[in-house]
Amino acid sequence: MQPLPGFRDFYPPDCAFRNLIFSRWRESCRRFNFVEYDGPLLEPIELYQKKSGDEIFGQIYHFIDKGSRAVALRPEMTPTLARMIEAHFKEYRKPIKWFSIPQLFRYERAQRGRLREHYQLNCDIVGEAGLEADIELINLAIDILLSFDLGKEDFVVRISDRHFWTEFLRKKGISEDNWYAFFQAIDKIEREPKEEIEKRLGSLAKEVFEILENPPCWERFDIILEGLHNRGLGEFVRIDLGIVRGLAYYTGVVYEVFDRLGKFRAIAGGGRYDDLLKQIGGEDIAASGFGMGDVVLGEILREKQIIQPSFPRLDVYVVFPEGEKIPKGLLLIEKLRRSGFSVDFSFYPSKLKKQLAIAQSLNARFALFVSESIEEGVVEIKNMDERTQFSLPVDKLIEWLNQRAT
Amino acid sequence: MQPLPGFRDFYPPDCAFRNLIFSRWRESCRRFNFVEYDGPLLEPIELYQKKSGDEIFGQIYHFIDKGSRAVALRPEMTPTLARMIEAHFKEYRKPIKWFSIPQLFRYERAQRGRLREHYQLNCDIVGEAGLEADIELINLAIDILLSFDLGKEDFVVRISDRHFWTEFLRKKGISEDNWYAFFQAIDKIEREPKEEIEKRLGSLAKEVFEILENPPCWERFDIILEGLHNRGLGEFVRIDLGIVRGLAYYTGVVYEVFDRLGKFRAIAGGGRYDDLLKQIGGEDIAASGFGMGDVVLGEILREKQIIQPSFPRLDVYVVFPEGEKIPKGLLLIEKLRRSGFSVDFSFYPSKLKKQLAIAQSLNARFALFVSESIEEGVVEIKNMDERTQFSLPVDKLIEWLNQRAT
Repeated sequence: MQPLPGFRDFYPPDCAFRNLIFSRWRESCRRFNFVEYDGPLLEPIELYQKKSGDEIFGQIYHFIDKGSRAVALRPEMTPTLARMIEAHFKEYRKPIKWFSIPQLFRYERAQRGRLREHYQLNCDIVGEAGLEADIELINLAIDILLSFDLGKEDFVVRISDRHFWTEFLRKKGISEDNWYAFFQAIDKIEREPKEEIEKRLGSLAKEVFEILENPPCWERFDIILEGLHNRGLGEFVRIDLGIVRGLAYYTGVVYEVFDRLGKFRAIAGGGRYDDLLKQIGGEDIAASGFGMGDVVLGEILREKQIIQPSFPRLDVYVVFPEGEKIPKGLLLIEKLRRSGFSVDFSFYPSKLKKQLAIAQSLNARFALFVSESIEEGVVEIKNMDERTQFSLPVDKLIEWLNQRAT
Repeated sequence: MQPLPGFRDFYPPDCAFRNLIFSRWRESCRRFNFVEYDGPLLEPIELYQKKSGDEIFGQIYHFIDKGSRAVALRPEMTPTLARMIEAHFKEYRKPIKWFSIPQLFRYERAQRGRLREHYQLNCDIVGEAGLEADIELINLAIDILLSFDLGKEDFVVRISDRHFWTEFLRKKGISEDNWYAFFQAIDKIEREPKEEIEKRLGSLAKEVFEILENPPCWERFDIILEGLHNRGLGEFVRIDLGIVRGLAYYTGVVYEVFDRLGKFRAIAGGGRYDDLLKQIGGEDIAASGFGMGDVVLGEILREKQIIQPSFPRLDVYVVFPEGEKIPKGLLLIEKLRRSGFSVDFSFYPSKLKKQLAIAQSLNARFALFVSESIEEGVVEIKNMDERTQFSLPVDKLIEWLNQRAT
């Protein structure tokens, strides 16, 4: 039997790798004073319809539950966040800075960098409409990647703003009904042949291509770039009007993070979605945020071999005389474990040499020999790295280990 | 809009509480040298049919996906573990000691202590058929509860062994086809009136009730009790032949952990399932394990108010002059954050007093005043607890904070 296509088994090394990504994410969020929340993995499907329209049905896992409810495995976290914030908005100091690490699900063709499930760090600032919130979020996205020892030669944040294009479209007299099609055309620029895009853009094509080639000066871009420059982050970002983000609900600044060589899918992406909370709960609340998945990031980290998740060392392996588990040795194991040390031993003690080989293969720091001398309160301990061995009074053992634990 | 019935929103305090449970679980597993794995949340439904028969369909979330696969939200972790182990059994040193913290789903009437989703720590030892593995697992379950500051007055492990009853049934000449019905009768003893149970047990009733009242001596129980006694755990356990566990696949030792007053559902439960891997993958591999959910444990911890999850303190709140964000201050914030400190500030600086009030409400350790003096390399820092204030050279700030960070 196999896992479903697009789903992952996490054997211990993969699980350690995943958990290392999670812990770096959490640590970066802590440094930026974001607090963690989570929500249900299964949600009423209307939560996503409200936001993304019926087109979402084509890409998600949805079904009717035994209570006749139309439900979906969450394809993204933002609608859940919007629902949760909406219900308690007044109770929180603004701006609200929250993060979450949900597992998300999409029914799409599984391919490199795109599975049917992934974990996605979501960082959002709610209750602040100004560009300062977007700058803080872009700053956080950059700092997270720096925390994985990626540098400016590894990634770039490509920033745009939907306001730029909506101003442009308004000036051209294009009716709002056609804006979404326009954004879709821009969104596909790197994936479709130029002629296709030209067809989609119609009479606007020439001017749009010129703008993309040479982004004009624009006050909001100046503010963002200055804000990031002031924080020493100028070299990690550039304005790219080709970024609009696929989702319908973005209203302002949008950005995506890519590896410099363009070998991988987007590492992260986000933007401002000031209308979403109103759509979901009725209250007019500004919000902005980004998501960063574990799959593309993981591919890049593996390729660059930058992070090596390692298992914690075993502190103590207890060696018993062949065939015999001395009761006081078992009690000592329990005492050591309760004192915080990791301890293992053979359930059915065999030859000393074999037990020591297990200690070695478990990468134990110390082998602890329990023999009849434990009745007189004495054990032997071997430092497995230095290959030195000592006799120790049992009642000094924990103190002795505490001084040597790293 | 509400979450689905039986599903939970985790607002920051709830998420902190959940994460604290997770981290204690992980820490205990580390001390016992168990390593973490995980698997897919969605699995082919046959994985569960193989193990539990068709009765499972009544209690789980299952549907047909867009690729016409019959799939289920995992109701338990053991079948996934069996599939994963089976595929790579030969590569691992035995016994295999693994744990996982999956979220599990059941479509049942939501009630106290029983939601439609929960997180469940799963600890398993695979590749060891002897009672020593069961003893180690019971030991771990006890140590986990001790790590939450629960004691022998709070909980008890009730231990039994299906072998005891199968020996009994065999002696009585009861055919194997009727064993499952017998176990179901025993399993329901605490939930159904005595007359119902008597009906279910038929001619065996009188003798069974006597055995339950006065468990006879039996060699395997002696071994388990002696093993736990040797580890100093005798007062946490008792033999209770009324424990058989609902699931069909247990083959040997079984146990459940309850609060002493019997106010709550089982905190944890487990046992030996030596036939399961064979059923799923064909290989004859011994296995034993237990699960501990977050819901009942959480209820007990909340009632006893034993653990108080707390948010980490904010290290530094940066105070800017009213209306002005001095660029060198922004650069300093970025530097502090990259040095590991948690830092926050107001996006649009208002009156000093207001900014200090925010620092206070964020429980900041230090308020850092950035003013024009930063151009000369000097900042003011206020210890928010001691209400003392100092001038400091900017280039000594990180060293100064490092000495005072806890």
